Amino acid sequence: MDFQENRNIKFIHNQYLLEKAEKLKPQLIKHSISPTRLVDIVPDNTNVYNFSAKESHQSLDSLSNYSFGKGERIVFDFGDHYVGHFKINISSLGSPMDAPLFLHLKFAELPVELAEDSDGYQGMISKSWLQDEYIHLDTLPQTLALPRRYSCRYVAIDVIDTSPKWKAVFSKPVFTAESSVELNQVTPVNTKNKKLNKIDSIGLKTLQDCMQQVFEDGPKRDRRLWLGDLHLQALANYATFNNKELVERCLYLFGALPAEDGRITTNIFTFTKPIPDDTFFFDYGLFFISTLYDFYKQFQDKQVLDDLYLVAKQELDSVLTTLNKDYIIEPDKNWFIFVDWNMNFDRNTCGQAILIYALRQFIKLVEIENDQENITKYKAILTKMIKSSKEKLFDKKIGLFISGNDREINLASQVWMVLAHVLTNKENYNLMTKVIKLFFPIHDIATPYMYHYIVESLFESNHSNDAIKLIEEYWGKMVDYGADTFWEAFDPNKPDDSPYGSLAINSFCHAWSCTPVYLIRKYITHTIN
Amino acid sequence: MDFQENRNIKFIHNQYLLEKAEKLKPQLIKHSISPTRLVDIVPDNTNVYNFSAKESHQSLDSLSNYSFGKGERIVFDFGDHYVGHFKINISSLGSPMDAPLFLHLKFAELPVELAEDSDGYQGMISKSWLQDEYIHLDTLPQTLALPRRYSCRYVAIDVIDTSPKWKAVFSKPVFTAESSVELNQVTPVNTKNKKLNKIDSIGLKTLQDCMQQVFEDGPKRDRRLWLGDLHLQALANYATFNNKELVERCLYLFGALPAEDGRITTNIFTFTKPIPDDTFFFDYGLFFISTLYDFYKQFQDKQVLDDLYLVAKQELDSVLTTLNKDYIIEPDKNWFIFVDWNMNFDRNTCGQAILIYALRQFIKLVEIENDQENITKYKAILTKMIKSSKEKLFDKKIGLFISGNDREINLASQVWMVLAHVLTNKENYNLMTKVIKLFFPIHDIATPYMYHYIVESLFESNHSNDAIKLIEEYWGKMVDYGADTFWEAFDPNKPDDSPYGSLAINSFCHAWSCTPVYLIRKYITHTIN
Repeated sequence: MDFQENRNIKFIHNQYLLEKAEKLKPQLIKHSISPTRLVDIVPDNTNVYNFSAKESHQSLDSLSNYSFGKGERIVFDFGDHYVGHFKINISSLGSPMDAPLFLHLKFAELPVELAEDSDGYQGMISKSWLQDEYIHLDTLPQTLALPRRYSCRYVAIDVIDTSPKWKAVFSKPVFTAESSVELNQVTPVNTKNKKLNKIDSIGLKTLQDCMQQVFEDGPKRDRRLWLGDLHLQALANYATFNNKELVERCLYLFGALPAEDGRITTNIFTFTKPIPDDTFFFDYGLFFISTLYDFYKQFQDKQVLDDLYLVAKQELDSVLTTLNKDYIIEPDKNWFIFVDWNMNFDRNTCGQAILIYALRQFIKLVEIENDQENITKYKAILTKMIKSSKEKLFDKKIGLFISGNDREINLASQVWMVLAHVLTNKENYNLMTKVIKLFFPIHDIATPYMYHYIVESLFESNHSNDAIKLIEEYWGKMVDYGADTFWEAFDPNKPDDSPYGSLAINSFCHAWSCTPVYLIRKYITHTIN
Repeated sequence: MDFQENRNIKFIHNQYLLEKAEKLKPQLIKHSISPTRLVDIVPDNTNVYNFSAKESHQSLDSLSNYSFGKGERIVFDFGDHYVGHFKINISSLGSPMDAPLFLHLKFAELPVELAEDSDGYQGMISKSWLQDEYIHLDTLPQTLALPRRYSCRYVAIDVIDTSPKWKAVFSKPVFTAESSVELNQVTPVNTKNKKLNKIDSIGLKTLQDCMQQVFEDGPKRDRRLWLGDLHLQALANYATFNNKELVERCLYLFGALPAEDGRITTNIFTFTKPIPDDTFFFDYGLFFISTLYDFYKQFQDKQVLDDLYLVAKQELDSVLTTLNKDYIIEPDKNWFIFVDWNMNFDRNTCGQAILIYALRQFIKLVEIENDQENITKYKAILTKMIKSSKEKLFDKKIGLFISGNDREINLASQVWMVLAHVLTNKENYNLMTKVIKLFFPIHDIATPYMYHYIVESLFESNHSNDAIKLIEEYWGKMVDYGADTFWEAFDPNKPDDSPYGSLAINSFCHAWSCTPVYLIRKYITHTIN
């Protein structure tokens, strides 16, 4: 996938909806966190990324007795992953301070980020995302309170230079953790399976740290409101924090800023006046409908549905223009179908299935709106799409869905066709039985995002044991590898792979990976509908 | 010379004098300066430091039409040297800003500083003095207003990264120049010698840029109030801006903070609550007396003299303890006699001469204070010191002063003995005639500071033509080399030498080099006494 650039696209800015979004902006809840220990980052070939944080010989209790000169480093371990702001008191020891203090600070979610040298970074995404700061302090003592927000567990301070006559002394490091929700609002699951319980608690932390003034995809990077992520975050949120306002706010933001052709952007920049990105994914746009549907199902807020119904309809209608005479989608190749970070499989059948999935949900919304004419219209389209999908995309001999001109048989197509309920429950069960034989153990799926849908398709097709096993194996592997929060990208077969060509730029707290909190409560403990 | 560390020394903090100093703190005068052109820094073997600023193909008028992506640089030339703060407006061009902007800014007095790579810096002084900033901006547009003060003519902005989808656009770069004085307060000299006139104007700019809330040695580095520099800055100031309050403030600062043994520190840190450095030079301490004497001579402010008389006396008395039974100084080797950055000559005779020089001035202060008992006492010491200097340190056969146990004959000893007026005027004339034959053209003097005293000794010994020639040749060479302000260190025989092992850390606007403004007005145009 190349970066899309669509600078000529014009966007609508619906002030009425933007104002509703603005009014729903939450006050962040803040907690002051102190480090739990000082650590050294050491090579460790037992760690998946080859580096671990090892307790330092220096003690946090004696912090203000240590002094740090040119080339020396101190690393604080805050004990868990947090999102927020960092401050620390700094003074000098020795002769009067005869030169500025020059510091390099680095904020890391995982130890490997502190082992990699930012100067050598050659990843595909902007180096500006690396959580580095280079700070000169002309006078000491002072409190260094950094204005930017970081996402981290570890904070390293490298003293680039003092002078030969004095050293720097650090005290009172504080990380102000920020989120729109609190962990103690949620009852942890008790599945009698310790691994699942642990996965749940890490998923909850992941979700919490992504719930800021919008649902962010990753608080380290990209810090954006993405529709594909929001769809899953909202479901996970209903199962846990059940924060209505934040989902409502995000729905209004997307609803306020569609393109003039009706399509909804993949994502919105929210740290300024909200700006829709000029990037469109076929599947992400449709998830606006899914998210609106799930929201209504959860809260029955008719006002929100009334406000956003038309936007959802226009998104759907723009997608429906891609249907050919056989009711099979043929989107322009620039209208990308994301599905997963692995770019090496055909996505056409996934797209067809996701459209059916969203169309089913939209028809329910049309019924709530009692929009009679459209009920008939969209139901007719759904029927034709299902029929053609079974006729054109399902290989009856093999018993699997094919995708693209080369009739590729891939995992994602089966998963999404199951979730779209194109076949009967019995057929789906048989399909997924085949899938397990053919594709398990899973290869070449790069994201927890796609793993979520695989697990969900197993549950939905009555393969609960395999679904639970997959949660344990996939998310459990991240737990085994020391995750404090779940990761943006993780392929157990290539655990040190990065979609961006550098581990340092990976987001190790990424919203779309938090969904075990939803899957466990819905399909295992049955504590939600 | 090693860095001195004397952490155990206790200092007096005289609150009465500190309050007087605080009340005299000036409001800085500020001017908004716009760049005059965009430049490229290019290799140039005709330049003394091998790099020049060449007008860019880009035009300042079209600045906001240009955009800068990863790895691109823009360099602003503000047309002259300034001290103060920098701000610039930054926006983005292209798709929405999908990553922070990561910038490196570098502030340079000379083009060579922009050609050197800060990462490779290996100089002896702290790297923290290099005027580098590394800035992340999470959102655009915004005005980047840097909080730190810089000393520069050139400002380079390197875009470390944007993202592939957008670039940075710069507009309205403004440098807010700050000083406690204004150039238009001074009538430029008109010597009918264009070179001297040019030297005068550059000296004046040098002095102005060092006159901040104290007399700083160099506004880029070390930004400190040094006694050796203050002595010359005050004289240059009387000849030009004639700002009484700033000298008075600096005298009070030194007077308020002597060590408990009576010695006055070489320098004070003034950007916090004033802190005396734990470094003592034999000669610098004595220049407190010289500076107080010159101040009284200029303004006849008896209150200031009364406030500081005793501090001056205690400094003198502590120095007098180094006299041996022959009335020759024998200071502890840690009590360094600075004289010049060239460390390869013996300084004992210089020290003897500087003590005589200061003692003469102190006796005048004692007379003003009408301190009868001490008049007799100090006059007796002076007589004995002069006598022993002539007997023990002057080699009658050779007709020159010797220094140290190896009876070294060096330039600095002759210069300082002339300035101390140990010999008669006629003898001084003959001495300097020999000096010119023996030591000219001058070698192995590293600083404009020492060149000042050489020139002054020529004038004082009636060698005016040689004095003028030396000003033209020495400061004139810096003019030829493109100086906007005069430099901290400059040896015409080794023009690219740095006392710190790196040109990038040299101060290219350094107060002690501004003295032609004094020398010209006192000895050439005779517009001051």
